[in-house]
Amino acid sequence: MSTANGDAKHSRSPSVVYSEVQSSRLKTSLPLPSVLKSSFHVVDGPKSSASGNPDQIAKLFPNLFGQPSVSLKPGGSLPEKSLKIGVVLSGGQAPGGHNVISGIFDYLQTRAHGSTMYGFKGGPAGIMKCKYVKLNGDIVYHYRNQGGFDMICSGRDKIETPEQFKEAQETVKKLDLDGLVVIGGDDSNTNACLLAENFRANNLKTRVIGCPKTIDGDLKCKEVPTSFGFDTACKIYSEMIGNLMVDARSTGKYYHFVRLMGRAASHITLECALQTHPNIAIIGEEVAAQKQTLKSVTDYITNIICKRAVAGFNYGIILIPEGLIDFIPEVQSLIGELNEIIAHDTIDKEGTWKKKLRSQSHELFQILPKTIQEQLLLERDPHGNVQVAKIESEKMLIQMVESELEKRKKEGKYEKDFKGQPHFFGYEGRCGLPSKFDSNYCYALGHCAAALLHSGKTGLISSVENLGAPVENWTIGGTTLTSLMDVERRHGKFKPVIKKAMVELEGAPFKKFASMRGDWSLKNRYINPGPVQFVGPSADILNHTLRLELGAKAGG
Amino acid sequence: MSTANGDAKHSRSPSVVYSEVQSSRLKTSLPLPSVLKSSFHVVDGPKSSASGNPDQIAKLFPNLFGQPSVSLKPGGSLPEKSLKIGVVLSGGQAPGGHNVISGIFDYLQTRAHGSTMYGFKGGPAGIMKCKYVKLNGDIVYHYRNQGGFDMICSGRDKIETPEQFKEAQETVKKLDLDGLVVIGGDDSNTNACLLAENFRANNLKTRVIGCPKTIDGDLKCKEVPTSFGFDTACKIYSEMIGNLMVDARSTGKYYHFVRLMGRAASHITLECALQTHPNIAIIGEEVAAQKQTLKSVTDYITNIICKRAVAGFNYGIILIPEGLIDFIPEVQSLIGELNEIIAHDTIDKEGTWKKKLRSQSHELFQILPKTIQEQLLLERDPHGNVQVAKIESEKMLIQMVESELEKRKKEGKYEKDFKGQPHFFGYEGRCGLPSKFDSNYCYALGHCAAALLHSGKTGLISSVENLGAPVENWTIGGTTLTSLMDVERRHGKFKPVIKKAMVELEGAPFKKFASMRGDWSLKNRYINPGPVQFVGPSADILNHTLRLELGAKAGG
Repeated sequence: MSTANGDAKHSRSPSVVYSEVQSSRLKTSLPLPSVLKSSFHVVDGPKSSASGNPDQIAKLFPNLFGQPSVSLKPGGSLPEKSLKIGVVLSGGQAPGGHNVISGIFDYLQTRAHGSTMYGFKGGPAGIMKCKYVKLNGDIVYHYRNQGGFDMICSGRDKIETPEQFKEAQETVKKLDLDGLVVIGGDDSNTNACLLAENFRANNLKTRVIGCPKTIDGDLKCKEVPTSFGFDTACKIYSEMIGNLMVDARSTGKYYHFVRLMGRAASHITLECALQTHPNIAIIGEEVAAQKQTLKSVTDYITNIICKRAVAGFNYGIILIPEGLIDFIPEVQSLIGELNEIIAHDTIDKEGTWKKKLRSQSHELFQILPKTIQEQLLLERDPHGNVQVAKIESEKMLIQMVESELEKRKKEGKYEKDFKGQPHFFGYEGRCGLPSKFDSNYCYALGHCAAALLHSGKTGLISSVENLGAPVENWTIGGTTLTSLMDVERRHGKFKPVIKKAMVELEGAPFKKFASMRGDWSLKNRYINPGPVQFVGPSADILNHTLRLELGAKAGG
Repeated sequence: MSTANGDAKHSRSPSVVYSEVQSSRLKTSLPLPSVLKSSFHVVDGPKSSASGNPDQIAKLFPNLFGQPSVSLKPGGSLPEKSLKIGVVLSGGQAPGGHNVISGIFDYLQTRAHGSTMYGFKGGPAGIMKCKYVKLNGDIVYHYRNQGGFDMICSGRDKIETPEQFKEAQETVKKLDLDGLVVIGGDDSNTNACLLAENFRANNLKTRVIGCPKTIDGDLKCKEVPTSFGFDTACKIYSEMIGNLMVDARSTGKYYHFVRLMGRAASHITLECALQTHPNIAIIGEEVAAQKQTLKSVTDYITNIICKRAVAGFNYGIILIPEGLIDFIPEVQSLIGELNEIIAHDTIDKEGTWKKKLRSQSHELFQILPKTIQEQLLLERDPHGNVQVAKIESEKMLIQMVESELEKRKKEGKYEKDFKGQPHFFGYEGRCGLPSKFDSNYCYALGHCAAALLHSGKTGLISSVENLGAPVENWTIGGTTLTSLMDVERRHGKFKPVIKKAMVELEGAPFKKFASMRGDWSLKNRYINPGPVQFVGPSADILNHTLRLELGAKAGG
């Protein structure tokens, strides 16, 4: 196996110039929960089960199923030994990833002298191909409190086939790894657990610990209150949304339609709404629960615009989750039918092909803006399928609202001129400098992962709790990954999955939003959070979602 | 004349919730230049002339031409009297506008007891229609250090016709105004000077003072080192660009094409380049000076992408000024010809109409992406003209680069997969919370404007200099607006204009950029400025353009 590795070059050499803010963040020391500041021992909890279908999970993870979650308690001690630890970043970037690595590194430096740390390059592919960089203090230092994943980069490959597991085994044997930390989302943590099971089944000494990463905020449970990156991304998007609100109020003539990153769940949209108080925020989970149509979403927006016009406001802010279309059942049907038709028929200009659509789908297709119709028919992925991800839903909604308002204008029900401005906030937020919360949280997650490996644990996800308290009172532990799992049937086989945490319509964040949105829609309760601060009291603000969920937990 | 005015409602009542950062900015007290902290008197400079065609300017401004610019010096005193002052915001928003108003207000409170201040609503139309709000401490307080123009809003109307001047006269007579402060860009300050001349010619007591506002940074001269808003907007855009750089380096697969607000001049693009070190930044003034074609701009970008591919980089950041197309002479020709053809001929599907294009224009049209061709032919403004402003130049360039790379791929000269991501940063930046510099600069500009009115001056623009020094050492004065003017011939008549300050290819900022861009293009010298900070040393950073221009002035 070719490696071309070693103490490889890294992209931020000491010659790279940092901005003032980057430098000040580099130099900022990070607080630790008190249990990590002196001696500690690891306490096992009760036997665990699974999130669903425990029998199937037990079959899939015969070596790991049922093992207890654990917590770190003061006093006692762990064995004095040096460790060889690998770390990998998996999937899309999230602010704070570098601090998880810093946390692992600093733990090894102070508590496991003589340890070695490897960073696998480019995600899980780096494990399979044994591409790595040996991490030393000089490299790690230059990424402390910095955004992005560029220290070792990331990738979206999965370790799935028997051959791929074999490759992973060879790598961890070759590097003589005591442990591997997988930093990723729901899929990556499922993969981490499969690796832990596989290594244990093959009598390899390598333990595997996961860390919860995703700006989407959809990897969380009781013991893992939030995934890192969500706090920062929402704050960056909210800065921009807040600025647009001031712009809208100042000019008095634009409706800004803001699409926000996050396909599967609408946590980002909900959090940004709680931070900024837009006139409208569409939450995908509610659209799905109410089986709304594209027409009903359009009408909902249009009705508020008309009411606002009467109240004298010809401007506003509307937030839309990136995955909106995926939440509307009729759109899913239409796309399914279109894929079939495109595969087997000719799309003739006269539109006779449309007769093959079911009547509901035909109606929907007819009300879509022409540009969207064309996009659906012309742009395909390599498998010939319609590319839903490419649809700019904010532009689609602007056009649909525009048509509806034209209609109402003719009926004398609307008198203003509607001007929609589309925006998409995505890449700008996922690589920002981590907020103070994400910096501290990630540093604790990293220490926690290293401590779990040091104490010989495997198949756990790093769990830092009590996040509403000052850092020093945060609690530290590991939750069994199997306890987060359920199964899904794919191609006739049961696959383990950690189900994505969707926005709960009965949860505290959505309920707070629902109680206020009527007021926001007609009055302008805009809040401009401003740029993320790293110094002063505003640096310590916790995002609403986490605060409300912690409050609800404390209250219940 | 109907007024419907008085102590009118304002949009940010005390019941409005501010974010933590907004609140902390509200409470932050603002430093003043030392000359404004004790007694001062106004010293006249030498007789002034004009920027060009002094004879014509003298004819256009018989009452004002030749008057001296002035400066404030310590000692002495101004008459004790109360004043009635109006203020108007004109044109697009720029961060800091509210602090100009706060500065005027605070000056009147402390130095001209019993004064009254009126804010004209919705820009110059507010003057003509006598729509105003009487500003009191409660209103003004709620906008201190806040972004946007929403205290009294703005507008783009001009006071041009004799009837409109008459309306303005009636308003200032009705309100018995001693002075009027016009906060705006080059056009608005020209308009301010015309008003000053008109009021003087009609023996009205109302004096008029201008203030330099525009995020575009194209209103500046020796005595007015910068326009407010430029600093903040560039810092907000640079935060986003810096994040995209980290994203690009982390994923290693995207070219981000970022279009930046600012049609006329490329100062914003240049400043953001100096702050972030992109791989490519296109400066419109250079494109125009070198008479570049769209093809040569495309080739320039494509060549660097190919060289980067050889160096192992399949990603990058490219900055484009919003007004790029306006700088390319051949595009201007094509659009002129298209307007003619559209007005007189039929655009037939077969394309026989294309024969009417000159051969160079025909060639250009043929290499344009299909979507841009359609846009040019289909979307017209109310006068039937092609809408250049609607062309998303970042998307156009992505498509053109893509085609060129396809071609080179077939020729074996390029082997990677090119993925372009378009971005437009505009509205997000022009309404952000003002940076510490813009907050302080605007507060001083406001005090300065009020002091000039207090000392009976008219036809001046508020001039705050020595901006590289601590605020206390800033110097304060007024520059005659006629000295900034030249004439343009329009419809057979001479019109006074303040020429926009374009990026000077021999100026220090461009020269610095030009000396570094070769290095940036192939190596990755990215800098991530991070979010604007209001506390700590990074809050005091001055933008590069201003710093370099001040340095060059000091050096020369």
